[in-house]
Amino acid sequence: MIYFHNDYHDMCHWAVLEKMTKYHEQPMPSYGEDPCCKKAAAKIKALCGREDADVHFLVGGTQTNLTVISAALRPHQAAVGAETAHINVHETGAIEATGHKVIALPTNDGRITAEQVQMLVQLHRASPDREHMAQPKLVYISNPTELGTIYSLAELEALYSVCREYGLYLFVDGARLGYGLTAGDNDVTLADMARLCDVFYIGGTKCGAMFGEAAVITNDALKEDFRYLIKRHGGMLAKGWQLGLQFDALFKNDLYFAICARANRMADRIRATLREMNVPSLAECTTNQIFPIFSDVFLEELSKEFTFTEMHRVDAAHRAIRFCTSWATTEESVDALCAAMRRIASEQKEDANGTE
Amino acid sequence: MIYFHNDYHDMCHWAVLEKMTKYHEQPMPSYGEDPCCKKAAAKIKALCGREDADVHFLVGGTQTNLTVISAALRPHQAAVGAETAHINVHETGAIEATGHKVIALPTNDGRITAEQVQMLVQLHRASPDREHMAQPKLVYISNPTELGTIYSLAELEALYSVCREYGLYLFVDGARLGYGLTAGDNDVTLADMARLCDVFYIGGTKCGAMFGEAAVITNDALKEDFRYLIKRHGGMLAKGWQLGLQFDALFKNDLYFAICARANRMADRIRATLREMNVPSLAECTTNQIFPIFSDVFLEELSKEFTFTEMHRVDAAHRAIRFCTSWATTEESVDALCAAMRRIASEQKEDANGTE
Amino acid sequence: MIYFHNDYHDMCHWAVLEKMTKYHEQPMPSYGEDPCCKKAAAKIKALCGREDADVHFLVGGTQTNLTVISAALRPHQAAVGAETAHINVHETGAIEATGHKVIALPTNDGRITAEQVQMLVQLHRASPDREHMAQPKLVYISNPTELGTIYSLAELEALYSVCREYGLYLFVDGARLGYGLTAGDNDVTLADMARLCDVFYIGGTKCGAMFGEAAVITNDALKEDFRYLIKRHGGMLAKGWQLGLQFDALFKNDLYFAICARANRMADRIRATLREMNVPSLAECTTNQIFPIFSDVFLEELSKEFTFTEMHRVDAAHRAIRFCTSWATTEESVDALCAAMRRIASEQKEDANGTE
Amino acid sequence: MIYFHNDYHDMCHWAVLEKMTKYHEQPMPSYGEDPCCKKAAAKIKALCGREDADVHFLVGGTQTNLTVISAALRPHQAAVGAETAHINVHETGAIEATGHKVIALPTNDGRITAEQVQMLVQLHRASPDREHMAQPKLVYISNPTELGTIYSLAELEALYSVCREYGLYLFVDGARLGYGLTAGDNDVTLADMARLCDVFYIGGTKCGAMFGEAAVITNDALKEDFRYLIKRHGGMLAKGWQLGLQFDALFKNDLYFAICARANRMADRIRATLREMNVPSLAECTTNQIFPIFSDVFLEELSKEFTFTEMHRVDAAHRAIRFCTSWATTEESVDALCAAMRRIASEQKEDANGTE
Repeated sequence: MIYFHNDYHDMCHWAVLEKMTKYHEQPMPSYGEDPCCKKAAAKIKALCGREDADVHFLVGGTQTNLTVISAALRPHQAAVGAETAHINVHETGAIEATGHKVIALPTNDGRITAEQVQMLVQLHRASPDREHMAQPKLVYISNPTELGTIYSLAELEALYSVCREYGLYLFVDGARLGYGLTAGDNDVTLADMARLCDVFYIGGTKCGAMFGEAAVITNDALKEDFRYLIKRHGGMLAKGWQLGLQFDALFKNDLYFAICARANRMADRIRATLREMNVPSLAECTTNQIFPIFSDVFLEELSKEFTFTEMHRVDAAHRAIRFCTSWATTEESVDALCAAMRRIASEQKEDANGTE
Repeated sequence: MIYFHNDYHDMCHWAVLEKMTKYHEQPMPSYGEDPCCKKAAAKIKALCGREDADVHFLVGGTQTNLTVISAALRPHQAAVGAETAHINVHETGAIEATGHKVIALPTNDGRITAEQVQMLVQLHRASPDREHMAQPKLVYISNPTELGTIYSLAELEALYSVCREYGLYLFVDGARLGYGLTAGDNDVTLADMARLCDVFYIGGTKCGAMFGEAAVITNDALKEDFRYLIKRHGGMLAKGWQLGLQFDALFKNDLYFAICARANRMADRIRATLREMNVPSLAECTTNQIFPIFSDVFLEELSKEFTFTEMHRVDAAHRAIRFCTSWATTEESVDALCAAMRRIASEQKEDANGTE
Repeated sequence: MIYFHNDYHDMCHWAVLEKMTKYHEQPMPSYGEDPCCKKAAAKIKALCGREDADVHFLVGGTQTNLTVISAALRPHQAAVGAETAHINVHETGAIEATGHKVIALPTNDGRITAEQVQMLVQLHRASPDREHMAQPKLVYISNPTELGTIYSLAELEALYSVCREYGLYLFVDGARLGYGLTAGDNDVTLADMARLCDVFYIGGTKCGAMFGEAAVITNDALKEDFRYLIKRHGGMLAKGWQLGLQFDALFKNDLYFAICARANRMADRIRATLREMNVPSLAECTTNQIFPIFSDVFLEELSKEFTFTEMHRVDAAHRAIRFCTSWATTEESVDALCAAMRRIASEQKEDANGTE
Repeated sequence: MIYFHNDYHDMCHWAVLEKMTKYHEQPMPSYGEDPCCKKAAAKIKALCGREDADVHFLVGGTQTNLTVISAALRPHQAAVGAETAHINVHETGAIEATGHKVIALPTNDGRITAEQVQMLVQLHRASPDREHMAQPKLVYISNPTELGTIYSLAELEALYSVCREYGLYLFVDGARLGYGLTAGDNDVTLADMARLCDVFYIGGTKCGAMFGEAAVITNDALKEDFRYLIKRHGGMLAKGWQLGLQFDALFKNDLYFAICARANRMADRIRATLREMNVPSLAECTTNQIFPIFSDVFLEELSKEFTFTEMHRVDAAHRAIRFCTSWATTEESVDALCAAMRRIASEQKEDANGTE
């Protein structure tokens, strides 16, 4: 079996494990107050061009999302996100568990726009019933989105501009940030990210680490007592230096960007094949996720050798699926997938012709 | 000024006040454990044909909704309702404040269907990611809905049947139940309500009381420790007998039904006029709310003498509004409104003609 | 039966009911945005000497406590109160329901001291583990306390001074504030209250109203969006003008103070009798609550004619109880209680002598 | 510097790292649904003698505590624990964050008794105000406790018997369970643990793992939908097989028990020295934690070579501290500590004599 169903089916890049192994018997201060976390944070702050940022390392994405959002909001305030947003559909109500509504905006490709946010806030403020409605206060976006699409620099600037104008926070979920910042058509840098939102995180779990996300807080209003909030939600790792070590390894010699860029190139090859085969897709994207739509019979054949994620049924005979590449995806695997797709399409075309 | 903007702009029906006054100096046990509440509960249980029901009196609707829903759900479970549901849009995130997501279903007229619920639950259960999503467990409907529409007996039976099949609770918000059960085309009785859901409430605030809602719990699984939950949410009125007295007055000689039926008839007269005038509306309904769509110029004139609620802008020149009738609406007021609407329409038609 | 078991067993002072009745058919704006609430708030602000205060009317005490406290705290912060505090023992975990720990300080008579607060905060700040502990941020006191005791001006000044020094809020639960401000040995005015805390409330329910508490917010940091928070917790009364009417009536010609002062004088007479009888008590207090300790046999006899609240067992043969007076307590009732207590004591003494 | 300040300052036992390394490039199903977790769970169920148990692996202790407790309780219910309990003092209000009060019972040595629980529940049930108080429903104990003490088999049986009698759950926090089950005077087996509570967890973080706790649920009432609850609180590790691998390694050839037993023997040697030196301690215990009380001057000297945890000040000149041993503690370190303590005591005695 060859694996394309997600970007977290392998433990970690060897450089991460090597770093962990090296510190295996080294006593360390606990709860993230160790030299490894400090060093990794310093690297991240330097790359962001923001020495004033606070960097906190957490274990997972849902944990990070709920900790950041509940830290930022007063009780009556809501997070605003795409209807497809991870916090809206894939966290078992983790944000609501902290007492906050998620206001869902319609989206075609996972992205939301500055105009949507502006209209929502204006409508809220203009309503005589506004005190009877959850107050929009934080905009949550993912970059890349759940559908692999990315925000351009201009889009990010517009979103953040609206947020500042109306006093909302902008929070960027970067669970796959590495793939976004190294996409072929990306024009956003890590420094832009740090400049164009109030808090974001750099995903480790899906980008080569065993686990771990690095939350970067640039807005002073969100910094106070953040460690209390991590602890309150059970997110403070006792042996926290394991997080620091991993990010230290990932940000040594730009490894993080290199492995994500490589995964994007692997995905580009799959995309090129799909394009040649005229396979439709749920969304056009340039990162490590691909969302083709195939017939059930095609997928039945494909699934004999390859894994993929089921998205949803498109019509009586077709389903959308997801392929993911990662640091662990080999050229051989990609070649095998592309060849298999061509072969199955060709055979099934013949069958169809033969049937006629 | 003549008032049609809501059904709670007058304190209470005189029979309610008379009852309160009568018990003004009578010492009573506190927190709802008094003979007045017992008597009112007995009346309600008899009308419901359910001696086994538990009846609790709470002060307001949002309070009742959040107490019932948080009592019924485990932490990872969600309430399901129409996108227009009061709990989804007009309670400042009160349900989310108790930790639960509200899953919103699309609706045209405020109602949701058994099919929608069934599909939602089936999709949830079939999803390999279901543990990553809030679990639908309680269906919340309002009868009448936010748009004044009502559920037929067949629709209620279908909804409850699906709920039981899939192990969901059905909770009916009856803030305006009296208007629903006395609508011209209604075929549901209070006993049907008690039979066709797990818990519902009989609204007092909007149906003649000073304040108060009577929650009727028929499912044993929802009865345990309910008073603890009322107290925990700050909903236990110290001088609780005030609630019992009001419901006792409202259910003496079917006063509750009489005043709601009369308000519906007042609304019917407004509806008849609107129909004759060919005024479009947001939703067709038969209860005490009416949602006509008028031009801005019409409303500017109308607002000089009458109050109404703004719903939303329909197009550049038209807005949807709401008229409400209640126990306090007089025939004179209704006549005045109908006459004024005809007059304004006529004048503005002349103006338009004159302009031509 | 003569009633001394609490101060909320009668509906309301006649002047309150008269005011309600007068406005019985007067249409009003909803949700507390009406002229009655504005007028009552203006009276309260004037009495407090704080035109800048925000005054909000809520239905009950637990509701007010949970709304104020959850409005003031960030998620990781805790309220600090006496171990006997209402929020700690008699609200079914309503504060915890909003996500916040209540840190309980030991007390003998219901009061806590500035020194206790200072030590708690200093210990917290000095602890290397402080991020692993809920952060004390708001001090909750009741005046009078659960045991009827009151804070002197000097004590309040000391508490507030410590709070300001360490950046904590001071919140005073005034469910029985009227009794406190009119106690024989009180040296605190309503204006002092407004000056010496960040938010407090003036209790109506236990001081002559049907229901209702008036929250007075003087600290600007606590004012923003407070109405959203009232709604979110289900505490926004639809026909909110009922609250305004009641407080308007209570603060006309100082009725509020007059009825509370009178109740205190009634209690003083009971206290004088108990003193003459050498009956021990749980706490020395000067307000409308009295906490004598009697033998079981004494209470068995007393309970035939009088109601009282059980506090707790003191030893194998004695229990502490509570008598309450209120605006509804008559001189005749007090005379009857005092006479009965003397009589029972005398008879039981004879019995005891006879037994010997 | 030689480290005795906690039992989590080293990453993990080499066998754990070796196991991780071996599976470093092996693709795995995500979110704990992998063969590694299944295998580790099977080993644990076998050791517990409970094939019917559900075993879930979580990352940390606070995470496990809040997930289990919020899964078990209805909103108005409370957890009961020692005043020193981790959930009461060292989790930044994580239990309250899920809406539940922690009722603290007094304790001298970290343990609570069946009698205390019984009395609490009886008092609650007998109180006429019980609906105004959080309802005790789950008893939380740690074994070993925060003070290193352990429960005997008889004590556990008594506690569980009371819990079953009154319908309460018993939850045992086993963050250091390995040290407890291998203490010199322990008479409890892992099978006893599984038999004498409703849910407990086997700590990995403090017993040789990189991270991880294994929750064992034996009561069917607590099993349903537990994975939803893990996810809702952000505790579902994407690459969950890392947890399975670690517990698989720890339970191969009883490694878990071997390393904990060895750590206890190391602690026994320190205890023996302290006893000979007549050093008082906070609590008598037989596990890997030791709580001696030393003078400030002694600790000043000791801290030059050894790390320890500060507990609290005992008097003007003395402080209680904690030493911890772990799988990583060497005999050389223990010898060095014992020698140093004797030397410092001797020198300071001479100084004292010289001063005289």
